[in-house]
Amino acid sequence: MKNFILQNENAIYFECSFSCDNVIFLSLSGDNYFITDARYTVEAQEFTKNCEVIESSNLIETAKNILNKNKIKNIIFDPNDFSYATYMNITNDLKTKFVQKPNFSKTKRIIKSDDEIKLLSKAAKLGRKGFKDLAKYIRKNGYKQSEQFLFFKGIEKMSQSGKLDLSFDPIIAINENAAKPHALPSEKKLKKHDLILVDAGVKYKRYCSDRTCVTSANFEKLTFEREQKFKNKKHQKIYDLVYKAQLNAITNSRVGMKASHIDNLTRSVIEKAGYGKYFIHSTGHGVGLDIHEFPNINSKSDVIIEDNMVFTIEPGIYLPKEFGVRIEDTVVMKNGKAIIL
Amino acid sequence: MKNFILQNENAIYFECSFSCDNVIFLSLSGDNYFITDARYTVEAQEFTKNCEVIESSNLIETAKNILNKNKIKNIIFDPNDFSYATYMNITNDLKTKFVQKPNFSKTKRIIKSDDEIKLLSKAAKLGRKGFKDLAKYIRKNGYKQSEQFLFFKGIEKMSQSGKLDLSFDPIIAINENAAKPHALPSEKKLKKHDLILVDAGVKYKRYCSDRTCVTSANFEKLTFEREQKFKNKKHQKIYDLVYKAQLNAITNSRVGMKASHIDNLTRSVIEKAGYGKYFIHSTGHGVGLDIHEFPNINSKSDVIIEDNMVFTIEPGIYLPKEFGVRIEDTVVMKNGKAIIL
Repeated sequence: MKNFILQNENAIYFECSFSCDNVIFLSLSGDNYFITDARYTVEAQEFTKNCEVIESSNLIETAKNILNKNKIKNIIFDPNDFSYATYMNITNDLKTKFVQKPNFSKTKRIIKSDDEIKLLSKAAKLGRKGFKDLAKYIRKNGYKQSEQFLFFKGIEKMSQSGKLDLSFDPIIAINENAAKPHALPSEKKLKKHDLILVDAGVKYKRYCSDRTCVTSANFEKLTFEREQKFKNKKHQKIYDLVYKAQLNAITNSRVGMKASHIDNLTRSVIEKAGYGKYFIHSTGHGVGLDIHEFPNINSKSDVIIEDNMVFTIEPGIYLPKEFGVRIEDTVVMKNGKAIIL
Repeated sequence: MKNFILQNENAIYFECSFSCDNVIFLSLSGDNYFITDARYTVEAQEFTKNCEVIESSNLIETAKNILNKNKIKNIIFDPNDFSYATYMNITNDLKTKFVQKPNFSKTKRIIKSDDEIKLLSKAAKLGRKGFKDLAKYIRKNGYKQSEQFLFFKGIEKMSQSGKLDLSFDPIIAINENAAKPHALPSEKKLKKHDLILVDAGVKYKRYCSDRTCVTSANFEKLTFEREQKFKNKKHQKIYDLVYKAQLNAITNSRVGMKASHIDNLTRSVIEKAGYGKYFIHSTGHGVGLDIHEFPNINSKSDVIIEDNMVFTIEPGIYLPKEFGVRIEDTVVMKNGKAIIL
C-alpha cells in the first residue's frame, strides 16, 4: 500500500495521531501530508506525527497539486470514504489513477497493537464505572422516571458529566421497547419489576468501549452485574438463555477459528432452545477507534480470528411487543482465548 | 424535477413526513417509494405521506428493480448525498441515467412554508427557554465549574433533560477559548468577570433553532439577554461593536436584496471600526430541517432574499489568545423585513 488518500477522521488519526473534521490525508511512498484549513493548522502542527501539515483554503486543489508535483501514477482510496461529488472533483483533470479498495483502513486496523489494547481496556473500565454510577442513580431515583429522562441520566453518568465523549448515544429501553434492537427513548415510565436494557459506551483517547446489560427494576437491589434475578419467570428464562449463549462464546472462542464459528457458538445455544428466529442480528463486531470495526462476527464471515483482535460478543433474543434481552461484552483475544475487557 | 432519488434523512423527511437512517427514496413522476429494511417498515407505513413503503434487505437492488420496471430514462441525484461506492453500485448495469444536481433538495427548501415557520418559531422558543434555564444554573452554581461541566449542563438545560434533541453539540467557551469559533470544552474553570460564549439550539419536530449569546460572569446578574455589562472595558467595546453590526443587519435587511448585501450590513460596521480581519467567517446560513441550509449569507452570494426565508445573522470578532464575541439570532423574512424568531 504505497500511496493512499483518506478523508475519514478515525482512519487519519490512526495514521498520524491527530485528526479534525476538515482534512485530506495523503501518504505517498511513506511521505505523509495533512492538508487542513486555518482553524486546525496550529493544533495539527503540534500533535501530528510523521506528517507535513499544509494549510489550504481548498483542500482538494492542494491535494491535486501534490499528486501532480510528485507524478503519482496510482493511489488507493476507499469508495465509502468519498462522496461522488468529491471523487469527481478530485479526479477531474488529474493524471493520477484512483484505485478503489473498500475498507482498507479498517482492514489494516483489525489487529490491535498492545498500546491500542491498553487504551481499549481503559475505555472499558471507564464504561463500567458509568454503568455502576447509572445503577446507583436508578436504585435511588429511577422509580417512575421516563425512558427519556433515564436516557439523559445515561449520558450524564457515562460521560462523567461531560468529561468523556460517548461511543454512541446510549440505548435505554424498558420491557417491550427492549424488543427493538435500536429503540428510541419514549415517555414510558419505569415501574417495579420492569426489565431494563442499557447499551452504552465511552471513549478514552478516541478508543471506544461497548457493553449491554439487562436488569430488573428491583430498586434497592438493582445492579448491572451479570447474575440477575427477575420476578417475571419469562424474563428470567430468556435472560438465562442469552447469558448461556454469550458465556458459551466467551469460554470457547479460540484463535484460528473462523468468525462464523464464534457466531455459531452463541447462535447454536439459542437455536437449540427454539428461539433462533428471535436472534435477529449478528453476534458481534470489531471495536477500536470506530465503534464498528472488523472483524464482523456473523454467520458468513470467513475471517480467521487472531490474537489482539478486539470485538463484541452480543447475542440477543427479541420477543416483539413483549421484551428483549441482549448481553454484550467487548473481548480481546490473548494467548489464543477471549478475555473480557 | 420529474424523477429524483434521495438518501439524506432530512431531504426524505421533507418529501414524506417520515425518515430513518436506512432508506432510499424514489420519486418517479410523482409516485413515491420509501424503500427501507424490516426494522422501520411498521413506523414507515404509519407515518409516511403519499408513499408506497417497500421492505427490502437490499435497498439498492430494490431501487434498481423499480427503476427498470418503470423504464426510467433519467433521474436526478445529489452527488453530495451518495458515496462513490453507492453511486457505482446503483448505476452498475442500469439503463437509467443518473443526472447530478448538487443540493437540489436544499434549494427546494430555501423558502419555508407557513407551517414550517411555525415549527421553527416553536424551536426558537424552546431554545430560548434552554438559554434561560442555563443562565439560572450558572447564576446559582456556575462559579468555578469547568467548561466541560458547563458544556454538559448546556446539554441538560437545552434538551430539557433529554426531552428534546439538540440541533448540534453546544459550544460553551470562556475568554480566550471563545476566540476559537469551534472551541472544544476544556478543563478551564469559570471565574468572576470572565466572558462566556454559548452557541446552542434544539429541535422541535425535527426543525432546528440556532442562537449565540455572550455574557459576563457576574454571577448574581448573569442573563443571556442582549444588553450586557462587562467589567473589562475591551470586552464591552467589542461586544457593543458586534451587537451594533448585528442590529444593523437585522434592522436593514430587506426582501429583494442579495444575500451578499446582508453580509455587508454586518461586515461594514466591523470593518469601519478596524476589526474586519477578526471577523473570520460569513454572516449567516439558512436554518430548517438541517442546521445549515440555504440561503448562505456571505460576501459572494447572489441569492435574492425573499419572504419566508429563514437564516441566521451572526457577526463575530475573534481576538486570538484574548477572547471572542459572536452574537447570533435566527430571523425569518416577513412582509419584506427580518423578524427574530
